[in-house]
Amino acid sequence: MLGTIIYGPRDIRFEQRPDPTIVNPTDAIIRTVAACVCGSDLWRYRGIQQVTRPTPIGHEYVGVVEAVGDDVTTVAPGQFVVGGFLTSDNTCPVCKTGAQANCLNVTGYDGCQAELIRVQNADGTLLATAGQPDEALVPSVLALSDVMCTGWHAAVCAGVRPGDTVVVVGDGAVGLCGVLAASQLGAERVIAMSRHADRQALARDFGATHIVSERDDEGVEAVKELTGGIGADAVLECVGTHESVVQALKSACPGAMVGWVGVPHVTDIPQQHMFWKNVGLRGGPAPARAYLPDLLHRVLEGSIEPGKVFDLTLPLNRVADAYAAMDERRSIKTLLRP
Amino acid sequence: MLGTIIYGPRDIRFEQRPDPTIVNPTDAIIRTVAACVCGSDLWRYRGIQQVTRPTPIGHEYVGVVEAVGDDVTTVAPGQFVVGGFLTSDNTCPVCKTGAQANCLNVTGYDGCQAELIRVQNADGTLLATAGQPDEALVPSVLALSDVMCTGWHAAVCAGVRPGDTVVVVGDGAVGLCGVLAASQLGAERVIAMSRHADRQALARDFGATHIVSERDDEGVEAVKELTGGIGADAVLECVGTHESVVQALKSACPGAMVGWVGVPHVTDIPQQHMFWKNVGLRGGPAPARAYLPDLLHRVLEGSIEPGKVFDLTLPLNRVADAYAAMDERRSIKTLLRP
Repeated sequence: MLGTIIYGPRDIRFEQRPDPTIVNPTDAIIRTVAACVCGSDLWRYRGIQQVTRPTPIGHEYVGVVEAVGDDVTTVAPGQFVVGGFLTSDNTCPVCKTGAQANCLNVTGYDGCQAELIRVQNADGTLLATAGQPDEALVPSVLALSDVMCTGWHAAVCAGVRPGDTVVVVGDGAVGLCGVLAASQLGAERVIAMSRHADRQALARDFGATHIVSERDDEGVEAVKELTGGIGADAVLECVGTHESVVQALKSACPGAMVGWVGVPHVTDIPQQHMFWKNVGLRGGPAPARAYLPDLLHRVLEGSIEPGKVFDLTLPLNRVADAYAAMDERRSIKTLLRP
Repeated sequence: MLGTIIYGPRDIRFEQRPDPTIVNPTDAIIRTVAACVCGSDLWRYRGIQQVTRPTPIGHEYVGVVEAVGDDVTTVAPGQFVVGGFLTSDNTCPVCKTGAQANCLNVTGYDGCQAELIRVQNADGTLLATAGQPDEALVPSVLALSDVMCTGWHAAVCAGVRPGDTVVVVGDGAVGLCGVLAASQLGAERVIAMSRHADRQALARDFGATHIVSERDDEGVEAVKELTGGIGADAVLECVGTHESVVQALKSACPGAMVGWVGVPHVTDIPQQHMFWKNVGLRGGPAPARAYLPDLLHRVLEGSIEPGKVFDLTLPLNRVADAYAAMDERRSIKTLLRP
């Protein structure tokens, strides 16, 4: 099969690889219908995170089951499936608490920007749709593989409740999905922090009622002005830099929670913005499997359309162009079709 | 009147001071029935926190209302009252969210280890009992002024739910009250981390089902052994040092919350124990007024007896001895009676 390998900064190659095979009886092999590039893939593409050897890349996908191991019971060849960006067995003690991203048997993938994908712990990872979904729904189902679950996790961790005023820091695909999540969870006002017109428009489409284009302390001041001086009931941090974490903490009302899902490029959290203000911080990699059934239902019934974050579609063999488009911010998120 | 002034490290004096008076129409003056020394008072006593000038000290009290300002409507002279360690108006937008410790009009006290106390925002701070409580209940009502509300806050912030396994880091009065809170909130197993026999005994009396006497990584290992290797469903951090915060974070199961109430003597929180494990951190000064009605009810009906944390009672004029006893760990917490 053909698959994507990252060789180093800005060196993405789509090349011949061995077909994946069933190794464990709990495995499934998926023929990719759509995949995409993640903001977190760009850390290696940009050389911020080191690539020590040629590495298969990609962790988001939808596809059709090609084969399953003997122990797989919930999905079968021919079914259309989606799985999260990490696998989970969905049965271990940690999964049972709802923290499937921290499954005791968690694994990643050997590259999902490929024609075929091996999915470990298929029963605990994959969810099948009833029949082949309408072509127009494919991008939205694909978005559940990571960004929509991740934005949802931010909103859940921030404790968004009906009637809340919610701030979302970050206007990437995850932040935009966070806006959608907050809106779905009943937020009355969603303040999207964004300085890009196209992303502001999509944020509004996803339910943002206010846009704040200022950053850092100016952004915090703008939020305070919109919230009677006290800050938001819940804040979603969808970037991961020191500045964005501080901005998120400072935008929160005393007693509120910040849900953080931006992969942190900070080593320490300044507690001065937490303890005395009674502002909490909770988040991490999203337990995709915990959210998938509900979110898939919302997509299929048409109540959410997270696939709108894809503003560019390329054939899978142009995967290198997809990285370049996202790196150069010509695309919020690029969808790839084999 | 006579009141307590801290002049510097280990220099506590009980001396003549002007009687407090009604300054604002929302004030009340209380004649102290009982007061006590807080673990946080010891930071100045030990010279860890600087005393720049002679300062009235103490923030925990129960007493009888002596006088009220014209605008006070919920308490009246002659009533027995308790108030939290910070005042709150209980009506501002922040109070309405339940974060009364961060009331927009929050104040402290001009020293509660005194015969008379001025309480600002009396309506939003004080709670009166129906009649004079039985003498035996006075220590438990006094404990609501700080330590019991603070331990309760830790348990609430940690999200303790019925059936949970809960770890409590810290065996001071707050940690012990945290054990009691976790137990009241339905925890099935409460693991108290303590290395002092008397405190272990009180922890068991308060509902601890397990004692772990090891600290740091050894303590974490002991918790893991008791929790099938995955950590606790909820963790209460009741110390505030870097070591105790790290120990608390590492004792938590992925997806769990750490409720922290130990006044932090750390500037940064190491995120390595948070994000990738999906462990959250929430807490700060307790919104006493939010918890007082429920906790006072529990004390008066006899379902909790947090006053057991007082293992030494001294006359108020021996307040300096009370500090010494707590400093030298001869007493967990010392009650003072005028």
